[in-house]
Amino acid sequence: MKIAVDGMGGDYSPKIVVEGSIEALKEFKDLHIIITGKEEDIRSELDNHEYDKSRLSIVNATEIIETNEHPVMAIRRKKDSSLVKALNLVKNNEADAIISAGSTGAFMAGSLFIVGRIKGIDRPALAPLMPGKNGKFMVIDCGANAECKPNNLVQFAYMGKIYFENILNTRNPSVGLVNIGVEEEKGNELTKATYQLLKEAPINFVGNIEPRDVPSGDTNILVCDGFVGNTILKMYEGVSSTIFDILKSEIMGSTRTKIGGLLLKPVFKGFKTKFDYKEYGGAAFLGVKGICIKAHGSSDGRAFKNAIRQAKIFYDNKIIEKISKEIEEYDIN
Amino acid sequence: MKIAVDGMGGDYSPKIVVEGSIEALKEFKDLHIIITGKEEDIRSELDNHEYDKSRLSIVNATEIIETNEHPVMAIRRKKDSSLVKALNLVKNNEADAIISAGSTGAFMAGSLFIVGRIKGIDRPALAPLMPGKNGKFMVIDCGANAECKPNNLVQFAYMGKIYFENILNTRNPSVGLVNIGVEEEKGNELTKATYQLLKEAPINFVGNIEPRDVPSGDTNILVCDGFVGNTILKMYEGVSSTIFDILKSEIMGSTRTKIGGLLLKPVFKGFKTKFDYKEYGGAAFLGVKGICIKAHGSSDGRAFKNAIRQAKIFYDNKIIEKISKEIEEYDIN
Repeated sequence: MKIAVDGMGGDYSPKIVVEGSIEALKEFKDLHIIITGKEEDIRSELDNHEYDKSRLSIVNATEIIETNEHPVMAIRRKKDSSLVKALNLVKNNEADAIISAGSTGAFMAGSLFIVGRIKGIDRPALAPLMPGKNGKFMVIDCGANAECKPNNLVQFAYMGKIYFENILNTRNPSVGLVNIGVEEEKGNELTKATYQLLKEAPINFVGNIEPRDVPSGDTNILVCDGFVGNTILKMYEGVSSTIFDILKSEIMGSTRTKIGGLLLKPVFKGFKTKFDYKEYGGAAFLGVKGICIKAHGSSDGRAFKNAIRQAKIFYDNKIIEKISKEIEEYDIN
Repeated sequence: MKIAVDGMGGDYSPKIVVEGSIEALKEFKDLHIIITGKEEDIRSELDNHEYDKSRLSIVNATEIIETNEHPVMAIRRKKDSSLVKALNLVKNNEADAIISAGSTGAFMAGSLFIVGRIKGIDRPALAPLMPGKNGKFMVIDCGANAECKPNNLVQFAYMGKIYFENILNTRNPSVGLVNIGVEEEKGNELTKATYQLLKEAPINFVGNIEPRDVPSGDTNILVCDGFVGNTILKMYEGVSSTIFDILKSEIMGSTRTKIGGLLLKPVFKGFKTKFDYKEYGGAAFLGVKGICIKAHGSSDGRAFKNAIRQAKIFYDNKIIEKISKEIEEYDIN
């Protein structure tokens, strides 16, 4: 399997991209990695490591797409960027997957325009796995489509189901519709219409899930439009970091609480491990004709390696082919 | 001032309603309270207390609206419910305000249909105050309107501003638009169009606020449609209770961590106090022609008393009149 990695994306590139790539080469012996980006910078990072040179190559790219650029414009204009070059490798079948820790917007726009959609899928969707109290869960869509139609959400449900069955070995995963009430008639026009379609679909639809029940992780796949999904993702992040910030500063307030904090170190550490997105790899961009994985912008080498591992599992399980087949079979358009 | 309270709404009624009312009578000497509901039940609760009988009356109501009933249907059919009777007291100028801890949906539907909208306001909105790291903030709308137009959101901003200026004595409060990106062009059709209107409005508009920055409390008023606002409210609730559940069970895991937990008791207690919705009273339903306050379903006597206090501040500051005037002046329709 060949994986293209965007060497210049993310807060700590190309360092973490090189680190993650070399770790992945050690772990998976049938892997070849192509890093795109400024050859000189990448080479100088590579010089710090021992690795099998026959399984890693560089494709030089002189431009970098920054996170504050307009996604579509950037993809169109910066033909010689590390991201566009990596996407083209997938498009031209020179690579089986792409991973980038750079701009999410540019990554999605590029995956859509350069790699292209799976036939029958109207809207590809960003689908990260998130840590819940009782297990991990997927929110789909998390930001690719701020505006959605009911049919889009049904396709998200199908793609999420295939992901869970194949990547996470969950039989008959549960699918919930994110809504502001549990009753069938609750919500906006989108959720009301989607509810009716999901009820009829050959999936394990468990009904409306209120946002307060999202963090339990009891429902495997949470379907929503990209505006709501992104709100969930960012509230999750914002509320937890706010709580821990406050606890931390309160703990430092007195000797008594400082000692208490020390004694609770394993608890906080265990919590951090349990809720560590770095374990999860990246967010899959589902519905495009190639394996496109978005790693977190602040990924370290381990997180990036896990994103590569995720791409490999994707490939080994033929997820793209399975989505194509399912979409065709059920004719859900 | 006369306040009508729904004696049968909420998880612990009429007990907590009676407790809160009596506390409020003690605190505010110019108050008269009318409790609606099953007279016998209310009387038997009242018998446990000492209070000034000349300032508390009961209006008998034989029906109760349950939280699982269809809001509009329930309001129409249950004419003799404690909620409808309390709302009618406001409509007929026999009371200046209504407070209910019962079904939010029925409360909003009833306030809208029985009390009615302020002239010029298209969509009244539910506007709770929430605790943030650096101060309290308002999310408006939190669930009254699952579907909104840009003009509705602008009206929410105006109402929020009047609330903050008058109830919380905040000069020139900041108004943010909840969005999935900070840039002007981000979001869905609603947020893009609303952004342009808010930019021109005579308010302290600070631009788009991403959900991850909501819990800081740095922005006073967060404007959004009711679907997104309800999602924020319920994620806030769900993420924090999940985190504390996990911490609690982890702390109980060993002797070391149990001792640590004991030492950190003041920290957790301080946190709970800081983030205690009960301090905040209820959520105002802004834009209706009367003071309509929704207390939390699980309110205790103190929370209910604080909701009464909130209604009183509302009344003393002539909020309804100020909203009417501002809407007329700026002709924001």
